[in-house]
Amino acid sequence: MTTDIATRELREPIDVVEYLYRRLYEVGVRSVHGLPGDYNLVALDSLPKCGLKWVGNCNELNAGYAADGYARVNGISALITTFGVGELSALNAIAGAYSEFVPIVHIVGQPSTKSQRDGMLLHHTLGNGDFNVFANMSAGISCAMAKLNDPHEAPTLIDNAIRECWIRSRPVYITLPTDVAVKKVEGARLKTPLDLSFPPNDPEREDYVVDVVLKYLHAAKNPVILVDACAIRHRVLDEVHDFVVASGLPTFVAPMGKGAVDESHENYGGVYAGDGSNAGVREQVESSDLILSIGAIKSDFNTAGFTYRIGQLNTIDFHSNYVRVRYSEYPNTNMKGVLRKIIQKMNKLTPSPSPSVSNQLPDSEKDSSEEKITHSWLWPSVGQWLKPNDVVITETGTANFGIWETRFPKGVTAISQVLWGSIGYSVGSCQGAALAAKELGNHRTILFVGDGSFQLTAQEVSTMIKHKLNPIIFVICNEGYEIERHIHGWSADYNEIQPWSFKDIPVTYGATEEEYKGYQVKTREELTALFADETFSSAPCLQLVELHMPRGDAPLALKMTATAAASRNKE
Amino acid sequence: MTTDIATRELREPIDVVEYLYRRLYEVGVRSVHGLPGDYNLVALDSLPKCGLKWVGNCNELNAGYAADGYARVNGISALITTFGVGELSALNAIAGAYSEFVPIVHIVGQPSTKSQRDGMLLHHTLGNGDFNVFANMSAGISCAMAKLNDPHEAPTLIDNAIRECWIRSRPVYITLPTDVAVKKVEGARLKTPLDLSFPPNDPEREDYVVDVVLKYLHAAKNPVILVDACAIRHRVLDEVHDFVVASGLPTFVAPMGKGAVDESHENYGGVYAGDGSNAGVREQVESSDLILSIGAIKSDFNTAGFTYRIGQLNTIDFHSNYVRVRYSEYPNTNMKGVLRKIIQKMNKLTPSPSPSVSNQLPDSEKDSSEEKITHSWLWPSVGQWLKPNDVVITETGTANFGIWETRFPKGVTAISQVLWGSIGYSVGSCQGAALAAKELGNHRTILFVGDGSFQLTAQEVSTMIKHKLNPIIFVICNEGYEIERHIHGWSADYNEIQPWSFKDIPVTYGATEEEYKGYQVKTREELTALFADETFSSAPCLQLVELHMPRGDAPLALKMTATAAASRNKE
Ligand SMILES: Cc1ncc(C[n+]2csc(CCOP(=O)(O)OP(=O)(O)O)c2C)c(N)n1
Ligand SMILES: Cc1ncc(C[n+]2csc(CCOP(=O)(O)OP(=O)(O)O)c2C)c(N)n1
Ligand SMILES: [Mg+2]
Ligand SMILES: [Mg+2]
Repeated sequence: MTTDIATRELREPIDVVEYLYRRLYEVGVRSVHGLPGDYNLVALDSLPKCGLKWVGNCNELNAGYAADGYARVNGISALITTFGVGELSALNAIAGAYSEFVPIVHIVGQPSTKSQRDGMLLHHTLGNGDFNVFANMSAGISCAMAKLNDPHEAPTLIDNAIRECWIRSRPVYITLPTDVAVKKVEGARLKTPLDLSFPPNDPEREDYVVDVVLKYLHAAKNPVILVDACAIRHRVLDEVHDFVVASGLPTFVAPMGKGAVDESHENYGGVYAGDGSNAGVREQVESSDLILSIGAIKSDFNTAGFTYRIGQLNTIDFHSNYVRVRYSEYPNTNMKGVLRKIIQKMNKLTPSPSPSVSNQLPDSEKDSSEEKITHSWLWPSVGQWLKPNDVVITETGTANFGIWETRFPKGVTAISQVLWGSIGYSVGSCQGAALAAKELGNHRTILFVGDGSFQLTAQEVSTMIKHKLNPIIFVICNEGYEIERHIHGWSADYNEIQPWSFKDIPVTYGATEEEYKGYQVKTREELTALFADETFSSAPCLQLVELHMPRGDAPLALKMTATAAASRNKE
Repeated sequence: MTTDIATRELREPIDVVEYLYRRLYEVGVRSVHGLPGDYNLVALDSLPKCGLKWVGNCNELNAGYAADGYARVNGISALITTFGVGELSALNAIAGAYSEFVPIVHIVGQPSTKSQRDGMLLHHTLGNGDFNVFANMSAGISCAMAKLNDPHEAPTLIDNAIRECWIRSRPVYITLPTDVAVKKVEGARLKTPLDLSFPPNDPEREDYVVDVVLKYLHAAKNPVILVDACAIRHRVLDEVHDFVVASGLPTFVAPMGKGAVDESHENYGGVYAGDGSNAGVREQVESSDLILSIGAIKSDFNTAGFTYRIGQLNTIDFHSNYVRVRYSEYPNTNMKGVLRKIIQKMNKLTPSPSPSVSNQLPDSEKDSSEEKITHSWLWPSVGQWLKPNDVVITETGTANFGIWETRFPKGVTAISQVLWGSIGYSVGSCQGAALAAKELGNHRTILFVGDGSFQLTAQEVSTMIKHKLNPIIFVICNEGYEIERHIHGWSADYNEIQPWSFKDIPVTYGATEEEYKGYQVKTREELTALFADETFSSAPCLQLVELHMPRGDAPLALKMTATAAASRNKE
């Protein structure tokens, strides 16, 4: 039952929705993604006074993707949708964030608690009086649920949900009925900031684990460090960096770990992904007698089709909630404290040298007379062009595998969905990432997206224009679903797409000549010239480049992964 | 456990996927909507040999909307998506179809049963080895689930699912693991067609109900017929038509029932929606002593905000699974048989005359010197322009309420989502409807969509071009979310949209000059001229008309409904 809290009992009365927004601001949210709907309109009124900007996306799936991109750059994000129609459209994006450990606070405007109690036959319902069915659909892809049906509980539920979102780095789901949104609660609570620190490990347990790790580390002949996605998502990049520097050990990343370490650092040796590894990497990693694996997600696409060849007897796994040394598991042990203590206690090591890593073209491309832009030429060339602190987004498809061959300058944030792999993600994500990057100090945001994927979510370029964001968007034009062709249907119709004039699209979204510049690039020479153009590279406005590449061409790692996927599907 | 069925035991061995497709063909499906993904690619190979055409949409939500539109014109439809990323994107469309009783067979390509049993860490999973979580999300919005994990059961499960889909007129969910798709089953079963007939009522019960109804009908002084959506969705339009003609009673439709009866028939009296009714209708319906209400869905937007004023003591409700006479309920009684028998047994009635209905402009508009296109002028004018058998789609927003003032010629199919109300629906739906209309004999398909709604799903116009469909698309350009403004936020930023050059968009999707013609219309005179142009009206290619209308203007019924919604949200 909803009972009003008498305002006179409250020292600093504040609306539930305002309480929620102030907490979001406190944890770092500055812009909120989503779409209006009549069940959230009143709630939207309170955004400006809480210092929050409304993005207003083109649709809810894109808004969810954008919130994901924003969170990956900013640390956390918020998404507001309307009951039923809005929230369900965003589910795929939320599931992706759940799968890939991205913290999004998803707020759903609901019909009033009275309408819900009365089982009214309202728009955006299934017509059966059940107001819980959509929340239930979100339950399996949220790490916490907060149903704000009672203002008394609301502040506690809100605080708990946002904290869980941050700590567990996964989406949470908050319902906000229209009447509850504007009920008063105690604002004085806001003076106590949320505690976002990881619960510290039990010291005795932590010491024990650290000693075990050190024993193996000090005994190892050629240990290496392998960093993966969960190091990024569970916020241990500072610890990882200090460990890499202090240990001097050769350091590698899995594909999902791209951007986790400073790739310009001398220890950095490249991407390890089994048979899909950078040249020379596989040999060194697989012959190591101790792999310190930090935050691994050994999924098919992250391992070039399960071609990892690392024995568990040679592995120590660090995770957010456990450490595993060979086959011994140490539950309830967060890697953050463990890594910090290892750095403190570790003896000086004598590391073997890392393979040298650069963005030089492979020999086969160096003196090639090929004019077309092929993948083996493209990705090292991109590496030469990138700048420190760029945000680089790659879509599932050829781009997501190609980027394995690009060595990043310092400070690059890499965004992709190697595990979830929902195409269209990158365009929405680019909007959110570019906005966060702008808020944090105007880093460049660069997107590589396939022509097929772009079609799913193209309209979010309109939102970029609306907010005067200046990402550089490369659309890889290879006449359709190239990655699929390598899995099945080499010349099948279903892998074709309708040919679009990609570079003319932003103009139809209302971009003026000052706001947008489009390019069409078909040869290596043209792309080299574009990369050399400082106006282009300084990203003074939104830019979209049609990057024409030959159909049938794909990065080597993709070819291997695709073959593995095709045979697994047949099993 | 999956066991292979030894092919030699089978008289006419056929792949599971082929069995499924042949059943789809049998119930009338000719084109299948969806997107490829590696878990469904092999299954797509079998479409052509089963006489099915692959549509290949731009994204899965749009594909789901398209399948909904196709089903509303064709009777049933099929949608193929891929595991996780694909199916979740379509959930909002499926929920809409569930809510509004639209039969869609949703087929989801899944990883092989072996990979699922082994809990492999595959792409498109949550990374937790749970392969049921997405199916569970669909369970609440599907009237049957068929998990084809075992080829032995597959034919039975398929037959059952398709039958349920048809009979209950709601979506069903079928999983198709990659390995099961190509396992052999008995094809000879296909010689026995599916039984799609409604289970007949128990004759004694039916006679009893019919007698009760007739008693009230024969005693009534001024009975009327009120037809709503479930009459369309549960396939009793022939019975309704015969009843209307045989009884001669004044006949009205609820907004969701638009298109259910022949609006050019002399009995037809217009739209009843409480305070939002057509002129003269409210008086006659609400003073009637017996309302024969067929297939009602009394939702907020279908009743202009619950402003129905019909007493239950004066009502007989006919539904797909029960009949209610005043307060007496007769469960397990399908209206189909009951209506048929009423027609047979009914005495000759002496009906009161229906209000006269036309597409004349209201007096206020007739001699108006206003040049701008306003809603009160637009919708009757549209009525004058429509042709028999047109398919007319209206999006949630001003269009969906405006159409209440349009009297249809004979045979019009009206499509909208009055209950579910997911914006963007109409563009996807238009693709599916136009395709079905073409397959069934080249009816015109006409869409009215708001500028805000169009932005959610614009890319599906590309699919229309790809398939050479020729709908006429009117984009109502009124600078944003007009319907929302009438609910809340009259001058709020969140109800603004990025201004697009709508008519230039199809060109960027690759439409040639022969394939597409765009228009911009700002005055009544211009629209009148366009309507008079036979080339335009004969729809020789895809056409998109920017219909510029003043911001702030809305149909009267919308204004009332919006006010009611706003105050309910505050309760
Ligand atoms: C939402 C969603 N639908 C379908 C798929 C299946 N899928 C994976 S990659 C791909 C094609 C991508 O094509 P494109 O973007 O052109 O990339 P490229 O040609 O560079 O490989 C498809 C359809 C998916 N991953 N996600
Ligand atoms: C998927 C979805 N998101 C949000 C809403 C909330 N909503 C309902 S109508 C509407 C605005 C429609 O604007 P437009 O299409 O321009 O129509 P008009 O201006 O003619 O009213 C919005 C945002 C919704 N119904 N569905
Ligand atoms: Mg492509
Ligand atoms: Mg509008």
